[in-house]
Amino acid sequence: MDVIKMGVPKIVVLGAGFGGLMTVKTLQKQLHYNEAEVTLVNQNSYHYVTTKLHEPAAGTTHHDHARLPIRSVINERKVKFIQDVVTSVKLEEKKVYLENNEPLNFDYLVLGIGGAPETFGIKGLFEYGFFIRNINSVRVIREHIEYNFSRYQTEGKEELVTIVVGGAGFTGIEFIGELVDRIPELCQEYDVPIDKVKIVNVEAAPTVLPGFDKELVDYAVKYLESKGVEFVLSTPIAECTPEGVLLKGGREVKASTVVWTGGVRGNKVVEESGIETMRGRVKVDEYLRAPGHDNVFVIGDSSLVFNDEGRPYPPTAQMATQQGQVLGKNLVALLRGGQLEPFKYAPKGTVASLGSREAIGIVGGKKVFGGRAAMMKKLIDARWFFMLGGITMVLKKARL
Amino acid sequence: MDVIKMGVPKIVVLGAGFGGLMTVKTLQKQLHYNEAEVTLVNQNSYHYVTTKLHEPAAGTTHHDHARLPIRSVINERKVKFIQDVVTSVKLEEKKVYLENNEPLNFDYLVLGIGGAPETFGIKGLFEYGFFIRNINSVRVIREHIEYNFSRYQTEGKEELVTIVVGGAGFTGIEFIGELVDRIPELCQEYDVPIDKVKIVNVEAAPTVLPGFDKELVDYAVKYLESKGVEFVLSTPIAECTPEGVLLKGGREVKASTVVWTGGVRGNKVVEESGIETMRGRVKVDEYLRAPGHDNVFVIGDSSLVFNDEGRPYPPTAQMATQQGQVLGKNLVALLRGGQLEPFKYAPKGTVASLGSREAIGIVGGKKVFGGRAAMMKKLIDARWFFMLGGITMVLKKARL
Repeated sequence: MDVIKMGVPKIVVLGAGFGGLMTVKTLQKQLHYNEAEVTLVNQNSYHYVTTKLHEPAAGTTHHDHARLPIRSVINERKVKFIQDVVTSVKLEEKKVYLENNEPLNFDYLVLGIGGAPETFGIKGLFEYGFFIRNINSVRVIREHIEYNFSRYQTEGKEELVTIVVGGAGFTGIEFIGELVDRIPELCQEYDVPIDKVKIVNVEAAPTVLPGFDKELVDYAVKYLESKGVEFVLSTPIAECTPEGVLLKGGREVKASTVVWTGGVRGNKVVEESGIETMRGRVKVDEYLRAPGHDNVFVIGDSSLVFNDEGRPYPPTAQMATQQGQVLGKNLVALLRGGQLEPFKYAPKGTVASLGSREAIGIVGGKKVFGGRAAMMKKLIDARWFFMLGGITMVLKKARL
Repeated sequence: MDVIKMGVPKIVVLGAGFGGLMTVKTLQKQLHYNEAEVTLVNQNSYHYVTTKLHEPAAGTTHHDHARLPIRSVINERKVKFIQDVVTSVKLEEKKVYLENNEPLNFDYLVLGIGGAPETFGIKGLFEYGFFIRNINSVRVIREHIEYNFSRYQTEGKEELVTIVVGGAGFTGIEFIGELVDRIPELCQEYDVPIDKVKIVNVEAAPTVLPGFDKELVDYAVKYLESKGVEFVLSTPIAECTPEGVLLKGGREVKASTVVWTGGVRGNKVVEESGIETMRGRVKVDEYLRAPGHDNVFVIGDSSLVFNDEGRPYPPTAQMATQQGQVLGKNLVALLRGGQLEPFKYAPKGTVASLGSREAIGIVGGKKVFGGRAAMMKKLIDARWFFMLGGITMVLKKARL
């Protein structure tokens, strides 16, 4: 199977997230068999759908609905897949170093290995907090919550059924939306009186979903408050402890579960590669190239793209997917001596789910609420599965 | 509903376990409406089937299969049910004190409030060990195991997927049998390589299932060893720590989960009642009466019954059920001035399950093994549900 293609350009794609996988999908569709040697490296044997991780984190869907085997998506006659951890990238040597395999040589490198949680130096978060980051981390969140609920009947402490969510951005609010759906099931399963359960959302900014339309924000807050969620705004977390969180201003919230959703920064491997980064993220040029490296491309959470007003777009799946599509085409163009197409982000709309039956968002410039928005959100999720594996994949994975 | 029956004798039954529930079932069948005022007190609104608790503890069945609502079993026109915790029993006052209700007066008292774990003073067991004791405690065991398995992929420590079972009596061996069934599912769910999982059974006696037929014991050990279980016999646990267990002789077994099944002693309420006890259990007379108290009966795990050789029978569900049947009849006889029937334990056989497809036992004086024994075990379990609620209850609860 492992054909050595002498003299053929080597494209190495690191990371099988939205960006990396879309790059590879585009490459394998457009490239002929011997035009390039394409290698995809990923830590896990599966791709996971970051935008759906808040569901298995809360336990409303199984984590297998948020992942799929990489080999089910790629064409192994055109793309070689290596499951391994990238330890470092040496741009001058044109080499990628892996934990368990020989180093890889590249002519073109795509860095799509995602971000890392940004904790803004808040003490104790890495030790005592949980992160909605990948399949492994959200499975632990689900189990941690269930374990603590199960202990309520034997230990009786209310902090066992108190959940603090740090950050009221997209992930935080979507996670809380799932929790609100999940709590009645948890109370039933573990014989916990529902009035003992507390969900507290702590946000440093003065509003939930900063930057989002006020009417939509109000709708979300009102809905979640009606389900018992407490919002503590304009209040940074000072410290996370084994007992819960200390807030700036002195209030302590005792909670066995603290989930931090407050931010994303770049990946360590990228930071240590010698490329200039801002909080670990690379400000790429219009062709998604790292500054000073014409053969190195950065996409997804590791990349920084600015809008016309000079402000960075938030790193989203939509952004990464579009980057992968353009980058795939541009790599083909590079191999064939064709014209590069500049990347221009085209926001198609944004919908935030609030559990499975409620959502808010802006689609086609119009505000959407409630059940209709929830259905749109499901279609957006389904679209990704469709892009990866057609209707079969949609039927297998989507929550419709 | 709460009819006050003046001058009618008051029977108070404490505990809705096998013994208490069977007493009440017999009473409500044989008593006329105004013959006595029968009150059943139980901590939970449900009866749980102690002999099945090893299944939900391992997670092979849901805990709802090991419990049923007390109100679905009793005839509330004949028996008054109070959900409460017994705080003390004053025999001279003929009163039972409850946590949240007025004290109850009794003419006849039935003590069937079960046992408590016997830890033989092993340090750390109450702090760091788990007990197969009731619905709440086994739900925590299941969740604790799942939580630790879920952490394997993020933390990588082998003790997270190591389970120590202290005690190789019936409960210990049946629990291990369920674990052996459950481990492949856990490995699949939490992406744990199955060769990393360890189950270690530690027993102070030189054999598994002490007192049981050697051929059957060998069958059980061979089967469980073939599934990877390690037996450490003739070795008491010296101490349970947050890291696992220290064994006498110096070996340490690192394990995140330690489940103690090593023994049962009597209940504190019984010990503090002034009745003479041995390790919290009451040596009852042939009519199941507490020594020196003709109107106080002790059944189930709190009672001690000796065989013809003067050795105590182990406290089992079978024993408690038979006690309840005889006691119910005797209470009716007492009310009517009839003859009391002495209690004589009639062992009908014993089957220990090893998961859902294997078992060992002696039934009708004959040894049974494997699938046939497993089926018998299921029929024995089903029989209890049948006695409580007929075929409907069997269909709802039994694992056939």
